Amino acid sequence: MGSVAWKQLLLNALESNAHLKHSSFMQLATVGTNGTPSNRTVVFRGFQDNTDNIQINTDARTRKIEELKLCSSAEICWYFTDSWEQFRINGNVDIIDGSNAEPLKLQQREHSWFASSLRSRSQYLCPNPGLPCLHEQAQPDISLDPSTGPIDAFCLLILEPHQVDYLNLKSNQRLTFKSSVSAAAEKSWTVERVNP
Amino acid sequence: MGSVAWKQLLLNALESNAHLKHSSFMQLATVGTNGTPSNRTVVFRGFQDNTDNIQINTDARTRKIEELKLCSSAEICWYFTDSWEQFRINGNVDIIDGSNAEPLKLQQREHSWFASSLRSRSQYLCPNPGLPCLHEQAQPDISLDPSTGPIDAFCLLILEPHQVDYLNLKSNQRLTFKSSVSAAAEKSWTVERVNP
Repeated sequence: MGSVAWKQLLLNALESNAHLKHSSFMQLATVGTNGTPSNRTVVFRGFQDNTDNIQINTDARTRKIEELKLCSSAEICWYFTDSWEQFRINGNVDIIDGSNAEPLKLQQREHSWFASSLRSRSQYLCPNPGLPCLHEQAQPDISLDPSTGPIDAFCLLILEPHQVDYLNLKSNQRLTFKSSVSAAAEKSWTVERVNP
Repeated sequence: MGSVAWKQLLLNALESNAHLKHSSFMQLATVGTNGTPSNRTVVFRGFQDNTDNIQINTDARTRKIEELKLCSSAEICWYFTDSWEQFRINGNVDIIDGSNAEPLKLQQREHSWFASSLRSRSQYLCPNPGLPCLHEQAQPDISLDPSTGPIDAFCLLILEPHQVDYLNLKSNQRLTFKSSVSAAAEKSWTVERVNP
């Protein structure tokens, strides 16, 4: 198993489960502001450029943003229901909202915005998620111009993996991938077979 | 919405997704010993007696036990892939292993052991999960007598829910259920409709 072999395993899993709409759904755990765990389903939005960093779109008004500002560490648990594979991906999350000072990051955020469907984008115009619902009736359809850039509430999360635990329930094999960073700031991965 | 209405919603979801083997799979987040989040798939083993407490079987040698001993708080994220419903169930976890001092709890552990398949039970005889795998070859089949009681490594977890967040992606409705305990130690639930 060479470097970043977990990424290839993940790409294979995505391909073999691609017929399932929910194959891009994963669970993101963070530490809550009171020190207790939080866990919710998020959507995988691809890898960032040619890296192994994982992209997630989210609403800046959700609780996870507040949590990640206090503790940037997160763990994704991603179970593929057809191939019976689980990936546990542990890493740090970079929050990229409209106030980010780095032009390159703002550009990535914009790219992620336009890569989303118009339907996904219009969700960021909805009332504050998690707050009491003031209207008993369904919200009127919100129309958003396709050329409109990222709304304030739109936030791109980039998870940089540090450790990946891979479990295959069909072959009953489990692998642990660990990253380390060299003096020259180069990241490398080691892999070990562990008991399932 | 009356008391413990979330339990009825969950029972309905279990029923409408029962044709999917993975419908009993949920993701359990804990806080790791270094303060960072952990997340893994576990299997729902039913409610404890007539309560709304959630039962999970696990191996006492897994990292989650060490983590739960330090921080008993956990959050389940359970996404039902056919009905598009998500339950986030936050609560405290009671760890019941063979050393438990309460006879009633030991009885519950034994009950959960015999309620598992023989195949599930024999997993607790396997080498220590997560430790380096010393044998390149597949393990020989381990035979376990069906009358044998719980193995040392077998552990029952009971999650007592404090808060439940329910999201239905088909109807786009979201509900937050919160529990409180009266002076007479009676638990009650309130529900609020919140923005999805």
